[in-house]
Amino acid sequence: MSDQKPLILISNDDGITAPGIAALIDVMKELGEVIVVAPDKPQSAMGHAITINQPIRLTKVDIHQGVTAYQCSGTPVDCVKIAIDKILPRRPDLMVSGVNHGSNSSINVIYSGTMSAAMEAAIDGMNAIGFSLCDYAWDADFESIKPFIKSIAKETLKRGLTYGTLLNVNIPKPENGTIKGIKVCRQAQAKWKEDFNEREDPFKRKYYWMTGNFVNMDKGEDTDQWALDHDYIAIVPTQFDLTDHQKISSINQWNFL
Amino acid sequence: MSDQKPLILISNDDGITAPGIAALIDVMKELGEVIVVAPDKPQSAMGHAITINQPIRLTKVDIHQGVTAYQCSGTPVDCVKIAIDKILPRRPDLMVSGVNHGSNSSINVIYSGTMSAAMEAAIDGMNAIGFSLCDYAWDADFESIKPFIKSIAKETLKRGLTYGTLLNVNIPKPENGTIKGIKVCRQAQAKWKEDFNEREDPFKRKYYWMTGNFVNMDKGEDTDQWALDHDYIAIVPTQFDLTDHQKISSINQWNFL
Repeated sequence: MSDQKPLILISNDDGITAPGIAALIDVMKELGEVIVVAPDKPQSAMGHAITINQPIRLTKVDIHQGVTAYQCSGTPVDCVKIAIDKILPRRPDLMVSGVNHGSNSSINVIYSGTMSAAMEAAIDGMNAIGFSLCDYAWDADFESIKPFIKSIAKETLKRGLTYGTLLNVNIPKPENGTIKGIKVCRQAQAKWKEDFNEREDPFKRKYYWMTGNFVNMDKGEDTDQWALDHDYIAIVPTQFDLTDHQKISSINQWNFL
Repeated sequence: MSDQKPLILISNDDGITAPGIAALIDVMKELGEVIVVAPDKPQSAMGHAITINQPIRLTKVDIHQGVTAYQCSGTPVDCVKIAIDKILPRRPDLMVSGVNHGSNSSINVIYSGTMSAAMEAAIDGMNAIGFSLCDYAWDADFESIKPFIKSIAKETLKRGLTYGTLLNVNIPKPENGTIKGIKVCRQAQAKWKEDFNEREDPFKRKYYWMTGNFVNMDKGEDTDQWALDHDYIAIVPTQFDLTDHQKISSINQWNFL
């Protein structure tokens, strides 16, 4: 253990001006030295997109009370990549992403820019956590969830994660305001049922807005969705190795050519 | 088994005019009835991005010799979603994505629009395969790999995949032109080491191009990277449940709050 304060990298996908990232910065300042590199505009639902066909801009900004902060024209993953290459003095002890304005539970993890930023940090070998609050409002109540965020980040700094794993933390918005506790879960098996809204532009050409309904097909009580529905914070240990190891031997029996 | 010809949905991330998707259409026409819904422009490295802040355009095009085809202004995942909601008469028996101009082996699977399109189809319950050729050239030789693609698609149609699994198929470009065979593998543990190229615009402002070096940290001989390096086609059974199930019990021992 060194005497150095922990170095903490922060990003998000709602953009550097979002109240969610401000709340995360507040908490992390109590735990270590903070560097922020976040998108200069909202980048929700960008998944693990990276920018390869356009140049990227990076601008130092002073909007978070003296905290070292950069806004970046790229995606959340771009932010983490450019932080690693151009900004960070050493590998951070922790990377946190969020707090996302809205849920990233279950299958949403793969569409989420918040989680992709954390995943990119984990691929680089950092302890990484994505935080999301199940409230899409810009003025959601981040104040009351700060103690939970601090506790989870502190414990992660203390224990450390093994290479290959990051944490997906979703925080409920209970009707009575009381979060019951924290559960470590698997992601629920769920999907979005597409429902594209069809419209006509002033030139009589059709266009569509993507909408959809979240369908939870999972009856398990060990899922993130169950935990959230019952006013618990859900922590899902999440991996970036997508190999379905159990299927290797069965598909090896197939007859190709 | 019904007498109906198999219905096959095709998409990609290089755009509907790419030679790679034309090759895939050629092969799939021999196996069933084909519907193409693909991006109207290149969408490489879009990961699992979806379009929620902009409307989406969908236009029927006749550029693939009588095959039902639509170009879509959205991402590869958008293409699959709008196909499901607006175009497909029934759930396809197979969805194939690609052939990507360039490798999607190892960690590249999570940045890949090609694989995200296939993953979205798998989430919806389709048998899904992403095909990539390890040659970035627009005029790469897709002709010689058609028998392999046909064989893998045919066997997948025959055997079927269980819900939760799709296939990531990467095809090497051997120096001597001879592919040795097919191996079912796990994805290699590898990452990109970022190397942003810094430039100055005519207005003296800095900008960056993302570049990087692929670093394979994995010495295993059961990986996709090993197979490709030894002139074998690599098939990785790939999953979209990102839960690191093995870590749930250990993280349950942590002390939160």
